[in-house]
Amino acid sequence: MTINAKKFITIILSICLFQTINVNAQISRGPQLESPVVHPDRTVTFSIRAPRAQQVELSGQFLTRNQPLKANDSGLWSVTVGPIEPDLYPYCFIVDGMQVADPQNQEIFPNEGFKNSLVDIPGDKPSIYSVQDVPHGEMTYCYYQSKTLGITRPLIVYTPPGYRESAEKYPVFYLVSGTTDTEETWYKVGKVNFILDNLIAQKKAVPMIVVLPYGNMLGGTPNPASPEAAEMYKVFSDNLVGSIMPYIESNYRTINEREKRAIGGFSRGGGQSLFAGFTNFDKFAWIGSYSAYLTREVFDKYFSNLSENPESTNGKLNLLWMGVGKADFLYRQAADFDNLMTEKKIEHKVLFTEGGHTWMNARRYLYETLQLYFK
Amino acid sequence: MTINAKKFITIILSICLFQTINVNAQISRGPQLESPVVHPDRTVTFSIRAPRAQQVELSGQFLTRNQPLKANDSGLWSVTVGPIEPDLYPYCFIVDGMQVADPQNQEIFPNEGFKNSLVDIPGDKPSIYSVQDVPHGEMTYCYYQSKTLGITRPLIVYTPPGYRESAEKYPVFYLVSGTTDTEETWYKVGKVNFILDNLIAQKKAVPMIVVLPYGNMLGGTPNPASPEAAEMYKVFSDNLVGSIMPYIESNYRTINEREKRAIGGFSRGGGQSLFAGFTNFDKFAWIGSYSAYLTREVFDKYFSNLSENPESTNGKLNLLWMGVGKADFLYRQAADFDNLMTEKKIEHKVLFTEGGHTWMNARRYLYETLQLYFK
Repeated sequence: MTINAKKFITIILSICLFQTINVNAQISRGPQLESPVVHPDRTVTFSIRAPRAQQVELSGQFLTRNQPLKANDSGLWSVTVGPIEPDLYPYCFIVDGMQVADPQNQEIFPNEGFKNSLVDIPGDKPSIYSVQDVPHGEMTYCYYQSKTLGITRPLIVYTPPGYRESAEKYPVFYLVSGTTDTEETWYKVGKVNFILDNLIAQKKAVPMIVVLPYGNMLGGTPNPASPEAAEMYKVFSDNLVGSIMPYIESNYRTINEREKRAIGGFSRGGGQSLFAGFTNFDKFAWIGSYSAYLTREVFDKYFSNLSENPESTNGKLNLLWMGVGKADFLYRQAADFDNLMTEKKIEHKVLFTEGGHTWMNARRYLYETLQLYFK
Repeated sequence: MTINAKKFITIILSICLFQTINVNAQISRGPQLESPVVHPDRTVTFSIRAPRAQQVELSGQFLTRNQPLKANDSGLWSVTVGPIEPDLYPYCFIVDGMQVADPQNQEIFPNEGFKNSLVDIPGDKPSIYSVQDVPHGEMTYCYYQSKTLGITRPLIVYTPPGYRESAEKYPVFYLVSGTTDTEETWYKVGKVNFILDNLIAQKKAVPMIVVLPYGNMLGGTPNPASPEAAEMYKVFSDNLVGSIMPYIESNYRTINEREKRAIGGFSRGGGQSLFAGFTNFDKFAWIGSYSAYLTREVFDKYFSNLSENPESTNGKLNLLWMGVGKADFLYRQAADFDNLMTEKKIEHKVLFTEGGHTWMNARRYLYETLQLYFK
């Protein structure tokens, strides 16, 4: 009896602890995590057990340079850094030259090229991607047969709150991730579902379906300035139009009009979105390029028709939006694409921000454009 | 022109290569992976770049003991092991005493306590979990508000092929994962969706909805033999009945009858399933325990009512199923639970298999019971 009463109090205290943790956490999970520990002053302690390592460093997009960790006698390495500006950041450890995700952190960056973990630094107010007490949409993992590639491929589909209960039809936004990302990256890192849940609850975005394809078409990504990039973009575009869109439009309640279809993406996905949007001008009226561009050569080769009669193009293109960070390694190229569109008299909106080629910027551009599409 | 023609051939060859790879792959992805490489004779080469490591070992559930990797001059460590019996196995590297997932492999074991990668060894015939050319169900990630815990929690829901097009109602199977697993583990490791897609296509299973809750209720899992375990099971059961079931039954087309509800789980999830099933005998008629048990003390304390009138119990319990491996560290306890049920005259089915406390066995038990539920 005594043990049970004591245990009961422990459970109640644990529940209270959960609720406290939840204020700062995305989704409440068990408190097994020892790393990262985000302190109230927004400094963060990162730890990893590596008893025989000679050198451990922390690499994170909140740092200007890698930070060394120090080991205690039992081989637990740790470092406290910050305070860090509120946002959701990728990071990893470099243990004797080897990059590893944080073994204590189950928030993983889905990627085929590297393994990073994610750390969320909460601010005083909820972030654009915070899990708030609003109706939540769903993320559905489904599998379609690619006719052009002859293989089964995954897709993730966001349906807005209320989708299951209504008979309503919705506009569709195709949202493509970057080089070596997977179809999960706009969900697990981009947080598109929570960003859109919040915007819909605030009536700042139109309820819509969002489709996340797997964008790595042929293995490896050509240099975006090379002709090979455009050829890969074409494979993507053909698969999108020939297989993904028919699957989505026969399985979801979509409005099948060009004014009710948008396409956008980050990095390689931005290039794919520009290419697929321009190629299928009869199918898309809204295009978003997040930290991406097309070269002049590609535009002239494939899309000169759009600039031959810019008035007609502008009449049909409800939005061509591009955002890029001034510290992005693609900034110069993206700025040149902006100039190209101006020269060609194709109307477009531009947002130059601080920051680099990061998912922090990708989320911000997503947040901006979700408030523009289908309005 | 020459370059383009050459590149065109490269693309065609890449597509052919994809299709070849796809024969052995679950879902075709880009060929960036260097590790693991599964050879035609079912030997497998595992590699990791760790230029300054002193010692690297491979740990995998296909090995009887850890295997050392050897380094080449550039710090690339590798080892070839096998041939390995066809199945899907967790593995990791141990680099100077530190466990790490395979950085080259993006198939990750979702878990809060360790980081493993997954390697699939295909056999001559498709496995029970192979992605075959059959209609595929969907896996939906959704978020419910837990009334008993006061927090937002994730759920993953399998809906069978055809769910979106029909108005049909379906039975529901609640499927719970093990200690330190997450709600994703029965999907990403258990492959419940592909197993059920295949069984439904073969008319060996009834089309059903499957719900994967996050089962780590209070952080950490008590020893399953301790009274604290039962108290945690009760928190799970109350959350299931008070929050998860109402969410599912108001958002999905479910048949809300006890004969159309099943509950089962692996390891801690098996204990939770037995406890929640016995506690809510008015709500569940099918119970599956995969590598799990309840103690005699817990049964006598909470469920003596079930053994007081075994005929009534047996009349209502359509199936009580338990499976355990003879090499499982919980084998003795599970076998004792089998004896207990026999002593209490509660009808049940038992499957003793080879193997241990593994997800290879968990998948097998799932496969067996999916063919029994709701028939």
